Amino acid sequence: MQIDLNCDMGEGFGAYSLGQDDAIIAHVSSINIACGFHAGDPLVMERTVQLAKERGVAVGAHPGLPDLLGFGRRDMACSPEEIAAYLTYQIGALHAFCTAQGVRLGHVKPHGALYNRAARDEQLVRVMARALARIDRGLLLVGLAGRDNRRLAAIAAEEGLTMVFEAFPDRAYTPEGALVSRRMPGAVIHDPEAAAARALRMVSDGVVEAVDGTLVPLAAQTLCVHGDNPQGTALAAIIRARLEAAGVAVRPLRPA
Amino acid sequence: MQIDLNCDMGEGFGAYSLGQDDAIIAHVSSINIACGFHAGDPLVMERTVQLAKERGVAVGAHPGLPDLLGFGRRDMACSPEEIAAYLTYQIGALHAFCTAQGVRLGHVKPHGALYNRAARDEQLVRVMARALARIDRGLLLVGLAGRDNRRLAAIAAEEGLTMVFEAFPDRAYTPEGALVSRRMPGAVIHDPEAAAARALRMVSDGVVEAVDGTLVPLAAQTLCVHGDNPQGTALAAIIRARLEAAGVAVRPLRPA
Amino acid sequence: MQIDLNCDMGEGFGAYSLGQDDAIIAHVSSINIACGFHAGDPLVMERTVQLAKERGVAVGAHPGLPDLLGFGRRDMACSPEEIAAYLTYQIGALHAFCTAQGVRLGHVKPHGALYNRAARDEQLVRVMARALARIDRGLLLVGLAGRDNRRLAAIAAEEGLTMVFEAFPDRAYTPEGALVSRRMPGAVIHDPEAAAARALRMVSDGVVEAVDGTLVPLAAQTLCVHGDNPQGTALAAIIRARLEAAGVAVRPLRPA
Amino acid sequence: MQIDLNCDMGEGFGAYSLGQDDAIIAHVSSINIACGFHAGDPLVMERTVQLAKERGVAVGAHPGLPDLLGFGRRDMACSPEEIAAYLTYQIGALHAFCTAQGVRLGHVKPHGALYNRAARDEQLVRVMARALARIDRGLLLVGLAGRDNRRLAAIAAEEGLTMVFEAFPDRAYTPEGALVSRRMPGAVIHDPEAAAARALRMVSDGVVEAVDGTLVPLAAQTLCVHGDNPQGTALAAIIRARLEAAGVAVRPLRPA
Repeated sequence: MQIDLNCDMGEGFGAYSLGQDDAIIAHVSSINIACGFHAGDPLVMERTVQLAKERGVAVGAHPGLPDLLGFGRRDMACSPEEIAAYLTYQIGALHAFCTAQGVRLGHVKPHGALYNRAARDEQLVRVMARALARIDRGLLLVGLAGRDNRRLAAIAAEEGLTMVFEAFPDRAYTPEGALVSRRMPGAVIHDPEAAAARALRMVSDGVVEAVDGTLVPLAAQTLCVHGDNPQGTALAAIIRARLEAAGVAVRPLRPA
Repeated sequence: MQIDLNCDMGEGFGAYSLGQDDAIIAHVSSINIACGFHAGDPLVMERTVQLAKERGVAVGAHPGLPDLLGFGRRDMACSPEEIAAYLTYQIGALHAFCTAQGVRLGHVKPHGALYNRAARDEQLVRVMARALARIDRGLLLVGLAGRDNRRLAAIAAEEGLTMVFEAFPDRAYTPEGALVSRRMPGAVIHDPEAAAARALRMVSDGVVEAVDGTLVPLAAQTLCVHGDNPQGTALAAIIRARLEAAGVAVRPLRPA
Repeated sequence: MQIDLNCDMGEGFGAYSLGQDDAIIAHVSSINIACGFHAGDPLVMERTVQLAKERGVAVGAHPGLPDLLGFGRRDMACSPEEIAAYLTYQIGALHAFCTAQGVRLGHVKPHGALYNRAARDEQLVRVMARALARIDRGLLLVGLAGRDNRRLAAIAAEEGLTMVFEAFPDRAYTPEGALVSRRMPGAVIHDPEAAAARALRMVSDGVVEAVDGTLVPLAAQTLCVHGDNPQGTALAAIIRARLEAAGVAVRPLRPA
Repeated sequence: MQIDLNCDMGEGFGAYSLGQDDAIIAHVSSINIACGFHAGDPLVMERTVQLAKERGVAVGAHPGLPDLLGFGRRDMACSPEEIAAYLTYQIGALHAFCTAQGVRLGHVKPHGALYNRAARDEQLVRVMARALARIDRGLLLVGLAGRDNRRLAAIAAEEGLTMVFEAFPDRAYTPEGALVSRRMPGAVIHDPEAAAARALRMVSDGVVEAVDGTLVPLAAQTLCVHGDNPQGTALAAIIRARLEAAGVAVRPLRPA
């Protein structure tokens, strides 16, 4: 058994820093780097690619909506053409930093409102897959693991792209397999051991226990850990330790 | 004899358009596309790459300082690391649009304050050449033709990059071979035939007549025409016609 | 009988210009000035206030969503607190230019997606009215004239603010009194005399003929003419001439 | 004897926070609030004005260059007209939040590169003073205390404005009365007691000991403490305690 552990990184901007990239990177196998629209700037991107290279973790792009003020979390009524162009622009920008450092850009995980919308909007998945395929058919598109995995993956495949799916060990799930909104109490699981137990179950059994106790099937190739809270690093460390203790290899989706 | 005719394009942003790209592209052999920092946005970049592909002209990047409000014309006290990262980011972004459309990105011409500073700042040329070389050693770096061509080209070569030089048929020159500031009267030559005669002399004799009548040697591989004024298209058309009538082939620096 | 004729102005940004402010201002009694979020910049705002002062037209703010790339036309999932703060910020910014030139800031007309949403979202009207009232209870809030005038005005009044309503002589209306989307054919009426006849009927009879021929009652205190198309100035001139010929005085909502 | 203690605040942006506003505000008598160009956003501005109101500290504007990416620290070749308009815009924006909460906006302290340039550029001081005077002649313009106080204050006075001067207890000074660049070792004094001793001497004797031991006269009406480092709050607390213990009243330049 094996799984990828990923974390969103490079979310600083200018004088602002966010997250604990230097600490948490020790515990993950791949990172998703912000590309300047919702977070990240050219210097931050360069340094984050360098950090990934030094630590030997796989690199993906984490493109967002053009809304630094809203951190890409506010949905915007963009046209499909706009979204495709925003992805192309950001992926290309990060790709250049990867090329400059001899690092492979292996996957793309949309951020925030784009990510959330993609979990329920087939047309958006098609738009994204098409945009990625035109740049590099080897890029993996990361989406939220859930009931629609097969359908979404089929859409991506029609556009020539492979889609992979992600689950969140430290987030509560609805019986329908969606994430409980962060605005609801209990949406985030703060107990590292509880999150680690959920991670292990996701990998070994392919299920997560929803808030009502039902078991929801989730076929995830990568688990996301968060670096934007003080407990993030500890959580990532314990999740990884428990996975490895149970014989699960933590490996990137693709070799770096 | 041959020469490249280039024009800055793709300088719109969102609801704003600038220049007469559709008209002037008929008369040039290569274009420099704004990359989103001082002008240009992802949709404009995509459309401009498509336009270049349809018309068979060579494509280069036209990166600028992060100052949309000032159109990249205001010098900013950026560090060398910042400038290198800004170039990498913007070139990468444009590169992705080129890749998506199967177009070669062949050259990089810095814009505005960056361009002006590069004409007199060897360290900046080194920083730029190094940044470009890390992305693609085949990229040509475009600078202002003048007395320092050889020295600047040598610096670029030390970083593994070829530098080419540009002259402006419709701009007045000082006896030192610098451009007369646009704020001075007579800085821009509006008479198309006069500009065409200057263009021909630049190509055939490698000289330009300065404002005081002295002949200044200029070794230029590309001539810039401007699309941001009403006469731009007519000027470009006449320059090209006069060059071709005199047996000068108008060809891109590199095949597209 | 009297009516206000208004036009959105000051929509340039940096090197970009938009509209024909200098020409169309001769025909209107008040203008709405963009405030830097979706269009407009500090210099443009200063010059537009100065233009209004010279021409003796009333000045209002035209605040938008923080989306220069989308010209404020794309709806964004902003919270009420965010929208209130965005309005306060932009109105204050324009207010300072008015203060500096001794001009009264008399009204606020939200732009683009904000404006469209306000026509159908009572909570948004309340948020806007409250934000304006905290700055200056004398500010008039401009909304789309339609069936809900009375209800929306009552909400604004609860917050201590007067709301006024706007109609569009050159736009087609649905039988429900909404604007036909610009994406539909026939949405914009290009014939100046037809638009002028509609303007006159709006003022004298308080009705507009919808696309299906039904007469829709519209109680508008101000009519909007557009400066962002080549015919805008001619249209504004003819609308004003026909109104005045029919004895309708064209006057600002409030004296400047 | 009395002195104002001020701190730059409201320097967050969207998801990013900076500084320890909630803690340090307990120790100062006035704050300078970022206005959205180099830092700060509408929500942050609103909350910071509210915080100031709750704590009873005086409020000033802290406007910067339009360079969020560079935090306003990079000098930009802006024209006087641009700078005047940038100040007007930002001061107006903050003023609206103050009006909405019934708080007086009492002073303006330019930020970063603007501030540094104003210390040596009389024309810039004139431009700033003129811009402020056109908004409100009661605004105080804050500049770096040094040899040119009298000359700069005279320029401001010619424009109808009062200028006040600021010193930095935790910064090293050159024998010329300028700040030692932050890039130099020893530029920042981290020992709270040493900084407090310097603060007291600035107030009681009107001097600061420069890096070479010479005593430099400084006539400061306000002392700046920094909230952007972990020791900032402790430093501010100790400076205030030592000043008050020595009989110096800590009071705002103007009552809030």
